Amino acid sequence: MEKDIVVVGGGPGGIISAMTAKSVYPEKSVCVIRQIGDGVIPCAIPYMINTIAEPKGNAMPMGGLEAAGIESVVAGAVSLDPEAKTLSLDNGDSVTYDRLVLATGSNPAKPPIPGADLEGVFTITKSLAPLSGMVEDARAAKNVVIVGGGFIGAEFADELSGQSGVNIHLVELMPKVLQAAFDDEYCDEIQKKLEDQGIKMHLGQMVKAFQGEGKVSSVALSNGEELPADLVIIGIGGRPNSKLAGDAGLLLASDGSIWVDSYMRTSSPDIFAVGDCALKRDFFTRKAVPVWLASTATAEARNAGTNIYGIRVLNQIQGSIAAFSTKFGDTCYASAGLTERVCQREGIRYVSGTAAAPDRHPGNLPGASPMSVKLLFADRAGALLGGQVFGGESAGELVNVIAMGIQKGATVRDMDMMQIATHPKLSSSPTVHPLINAAHQALAKLRAK
Amino acid sequence: MEKDIVVVGGGPGGIISAMTAKSVYPEKSVCVIRQIGDGVIPCAIPYMINTIAEPKGNAMPMGGLEAAGIESVVAGAVSLDPEAKTLSLDNGDSVTYDRLVLATGSNPAKPPIPGADLEGVFTITKSLAPLSGMVEDARAAKNVVIVGGGFIGAEFADELSGQSGVNIHLVELMPKVLQAAFDDEYCDEIQKKLEDQGIKMHLGQMVKAFQGEGKVSSVALSNGEELPADLVIIGIGGRPNSKLAGDAGLLLASDGSIWVDSYMRTSSPDIFAVGDCALKRDFFTRKAVPVWLASTATAEARNAGTNIYGIRVLNQIQGSIAAFSTKFGDTCYASAGLTERVCQREGIRYVSGTAAAPDRHPGNLPGASPMSVKLLFADRAGALLGGQVFGGESAGELVNVIAMGIQKGATVRDMDMMQIATHPKLSSSPTVHPLINAAHQALAKLRAK
Repeated sequence: MEKDIVVVGGGPGGIISAMTAKSVYPEKSVCVIRQIGDGVIPCAIPYMINTIAEPKGNAMPMGGLEAAGIESVVAGAVSLDPEAKTLSLDNGDSVTYDRLVLATGSNPAKPPIPGADLEGVFTITKSLAPLSGMVEDARAAKNVVIVGGGFIGAEFADELSGQSGVNIHLVELMPKVLQAAFDDEYCDEIQKKLEDQGIKMHLGQMVKAFQGEGKVSSVALSNGEELPADLVIIGIGGRPNSKLAGDAGLLLASDGSIWVDSYMRTSSPDIFAVGDCALKRDFFTRKAVPVWLASTATAEARNAGTNIYGIRVLNQIQGSIAAFSTKFGDTCYASAGLTERVCQREGIRYVSGTAAAPDRHPGNLPGASPMSVKLLFADRAGALLGGQVFGGESAGELVNVIAMGIQKGATVRDMDMMQIATHPKLSSSPTVHPLINAAHQALAKLRAK
Repeated sequence: MEKDIVVVGGGPGGIISAMTAKSVYPEKSVCVIRQIGDGVIPCAIPYMINTIAEPKGNAMPMGGLEAAGIESVVAGAVSLDPEAKTLSLDNGDSVTYDRLVLATGSNPAKPPIPGADLEGVFTITKSLAPLSGMVEDARAAKNVVIVGGGFIGAEFADELSGQSGVNIHLVELMPKVLQAAFDDEYCDEIQKKLEDQGIKMHLGQMVKAFQGEGKVSSVALSNGEELPADLVIIGIGGRPNSKLAGDAGLLLASDGSIWVDSYMRTSSPDIFAVGDCALKRDFFTRKAVPVWLASTATAEARNAGTNIYGIRVLNQIQGSIAAFSTKFGDTCYASAGLTERVCQREGIRYVSGTAAAPDRHPGNLPGASPMSVKLLFADRAGALLGGQVFGGESAGELVNVIAMGIQKGATVRDMDMMQIATHPKLSSSPTVHPLINAAHQALAKLRAK
């Protein structure tokens, strides 16, 4: 097979690379090689247990590819020859390309812990068949142990807490949940929320062993505790899937990801990489960061797809702005950019501002939730470094005002006087809007220095 | 009485001018002179009829002033002497100031139509006592005629449509509702939504007379139709309340507002003006625009309050970004910046992009609403000019991503590759996010030129 543009990977980064390339270069033939024939929407995997009625309700919609005239082949890519511009597939075929995008994603880590291969111990793949098995087990489970207190683990815990008759234990090595995205006081809020939903927290704990005869029946922790378990879900991050690239001699970054420049070009001419498999540099620190979000992958994919035959749009990916949102129970938590934890670690001097108000005005309107915003700005220059939000559902888009501000270099002065839309039924009062008042407080601190 | 800083007006612009000035200059004495002793939160006035249980539930919270050490006097300011730096009040007192902020708001227009003084015909004041009377009448009303199809009129119509046994007629002079904030296709969506809620529309119609014996009983339209009415609510805009300033010899703008520069300084030294009474220039066209929003007033108030003793923050109000949001039934509508209508009128060349997707992913998740985004970008330069959104509640903050983008000069290229937070329960999929896809479509149009 011979194609102008070949994309390896059928996740969000792969699909959007292909769709973008086809829309910018409609005369080119485009093909997506995807290993997983029954892909799912990755971000919604935790919600397959109960929120989504049937596992297949979370199937990744692939109709867009066909409608756009993009071929899709279900096969694994086993080797890549950059000189011959050829990919060998596990079905015996080979594909010759003019331009290649690697969107091979990441592999979930399976910890080297005794018993990790027992039945009932799951890592999270992105394939419907094994996930359906996990969902079936989860719906019947009485004792679930979740290993990992990041987004995946916490979202699984939240989802399961809506199911009656199940004990949920969450085990996390670090002292706080969601420490990568939030500062301590937000982590504590989230922990309290999850505990209020009946989830038992085991923070600062390691798993010593998964125990059972053939099937898991308990989990032994480093503190000697033993948790009953008929289902274990492991969400402890993973590794970039860069084997194909590495075997082909492409440069890898120190974190094992495929090295790319700010146009997502790898070290090999005409080969691009996007998504979890590709190097991401933090927007501010320029250090490698594993921001494995579909939204990040698709931004990179738009860049690669647009510029695959030369730089058509000068905008580069200026760095990864980790922009997260999630919901536990009825409360939403979101974060974009740097936290105080990262600023302190990296030696970035900052001022913070915090503010809270109901997300309706007056606050007695139906549907009102408390909303809280924390913003960080660079000391002196005042550039917006990051923000954290919790509140009602509008927090999910409010954080994108922060993300847009980071991307466009908003300062504390811009945000103190920013013009926003507000409405009694949709937002905080403009007189006390937490986004603005947090900036106002930070500006006062800068002024007092 | 002698004060360092005196603010005339107890609405959002006045309160935030005083609060900001006191926070930036804590050593100064600050006093607010407010004519209305029983002020309300202006944006929530329509929701006093049913959504808010008791009218006093919408009282403007004034506790912040006292807590901040700001004196508050209920009195009308009858004259201003800029030379003597003195205000005369209607209680016989006079106040000497060092710096003055005029936040005197606007007066609702009462049309010169026969019968406009009949009992039961209301214009919207910002005072609890008369509003309580209107609310009482509205709760008992069988036939309500609303004059004016802008935000106020449409929001009253929406609010009343939740009340059983009431016929609602909305009369608007222009061919579309909400024409100042939305383009035709959005206006049509809104019209359909309101009609689906049982509201009878009379577009392109004028009121010829309000009829009745002492109390209104019907409304005669220009097309000869006669609408039964036991309550009439008039929301047809108004005039800046610039009498105090004009009588004192301050320069007024052609629209009758108090002329101000980009630091909200009037033509008279040491006197500032903010909010509905102050001149607003459109961010792009630089023409006078009546953006009478509390959020705009508070942004101006932060500017005036911060810079009242010299320019402490170089950021000016670069122009008014009209950023609106509202909710009719369960659907939210929002707009920021310019519409196609304004671009065409002003000769601004633009490209548009539109996109739609459910605001959850997968779209079958509970709570999903269709969401639609339209963006306008300057032809060639690609600067973001404006955006319109409808969807679920997140539209209310999504529009602020657009507002922030306008304020910081985002381009179509920035938005095509922007990095946003997404979550299954909170937002559209990153692969089809309408905000990004609308930009992508506009970029494709620019590229094709």
